[in-house]
Amino acid sequence: MAEEVKLFGAWGSPSTRRVEIALKLKGVKYEYIEEDLKNKSPLLLTYNPVHKKVPVLLHNGQPIAESLIILEYIDDTWQQQGPPILPKDPYQRSKARFWAKFLDDKFAPQIWKACWGEGEEREKGIEEATESLKLLENEIKGKKLFGGDNLGLVDIVAHFMAYWSEILQQLLGLDFFTREKYPNLFNWGDEFCNCSFVKENLPPKHELVLIFKGLTNSYTSSA
Amino acid sequence: MAEEVKLFGAWGSPSTRRVEIALKLKGVKYEYIEEDLKNKSPLLLTYNPVHKKVPVLLHNGQPIAESLIILEYIDDTWQQQGPPILPKDPYQRSKARFWAKFLDDKFAPQIWKACWGEGEEREKGIEEATESLKLLENEIKGKKLFGGDNLGLVDIVAHFMAYWSEILQQLLGLDFFTREKYPNLFNWGDEFCNCSFVKENLPPKHELVLIFKGLTNSYTSSA
Repeated sequence: MAEEVKLFGAWGSPSTRRVEIALKLKGVKYEYIEEDLKNKSPLLLTYNPVHKKVPVLLHNGQPIAESLIILEYIDDTWQQQGPPILPKDPYQRSKARFWAKFLDDKFAPQIWKACWGEGEEREKGIEEATESLKLLENEIKGKKLFGGDNLGLVDIVAHFMAYWSEILQQLLGLDFFTREKYPNLFNWGDEFCNCSFVKENLPPKHELVLIFKGLTNSYTSSA
Repeated sequence: MAEEVKLFGAWGSPSTRRVEIALKLKGVKYEYIEEDLKNKSPLLLTYNPVHKKVPVLLHNGQPIAESLIILEYIDDTWQQQGPPILPKDPYQRSKARFWAKFLDDKFAPQIWKACWGEGEEREKGIEEATESLKLLENEIKGKKLFGGDNLGLVDIVAHFMAYWSEILQQLLGLDFFTREKYPNLFNWGDEFCNCSFVKENLPPKHELVLIFKGLTNSYTSSA
């Protein structure tokens, strides 16, 4: 039986992009299904009844949800195919998992608050995000990529920082995350975004701007 | 060189208990170091500078933080020793990771809100926790343990539900999580708590009551 791999995702979702980057890295062929997040398909709700979110990977009829878990699944399943996503060494694996979790659980909500918070909440978001950026700047120091010489889990997870944050800041007139303040992180971002299969999978910046403008306006109008 | 395994933990912390249960399951010998959470040791802050929290596992001088990541590390490192914590099959692994993450990210904050929230917040916490309990009740249906016949990741992570929740409810006069409503989860709890090495590692209930009373009082007095 031919292997069936489907990805339910959304165009503007960084979590979906993670999974696409990982599948490309491993050379796994897949069918991409774009979800309308305002009108989710019955299939998405069947495959991810708990969280009802993209991305969902469907592999031979078995659904896997939650992007970090999907990335581990891809690495476990196509172990012999393409470069590893997680290091083999247990300690290095734990470090990669630590920073991936940090980016999702700690840094992403801080960035959200820094960009869309109002007044004091935004100030607090910027302060917290700044603390996290310092930790990340130190972590990438002296390395080409978070994964060392090769792209790995943390690079894939952190890509929203390399790509999304700059656009967001420009749009919102913020400047807490600049090349001047974080040269190592910006060098990493250049390195990462220049990988050919990464480039192919990132939405064009001008189109992202439109999405974010919509988000910003809807946030403002609901505030 | 003899292997050095140290665990920095706190007596009343369910996350610390997880790690102890996993180490016992694998038959790994370790030294336990009790942390005073009101006056954290310089060593703990050195080994977990990002989160400054217990538990931290120190293996031959290398620190690993965050309990779910420590459990994966223990499984990766002592693969050939004792029973597996995660299933070998990639899909089953992803399911175990999914429920472990669900318990930590979704269910635990709901239980917290249901127990310590006030007024409407508590009501909302109970409502959300009830939805999650229904999902978990369905997940354990027809199985002895979340890991199937043998104890696994989800059992270890869920143990706070089996042990802590009952005490909490009694103390707080709540009854949203009862044997009558969730017979499968309570049967699982009995099964889990009866494993000899689990029993050995759970703090005596009457002592937990004292800790929680302290917490409840301090919450009430700060409200």
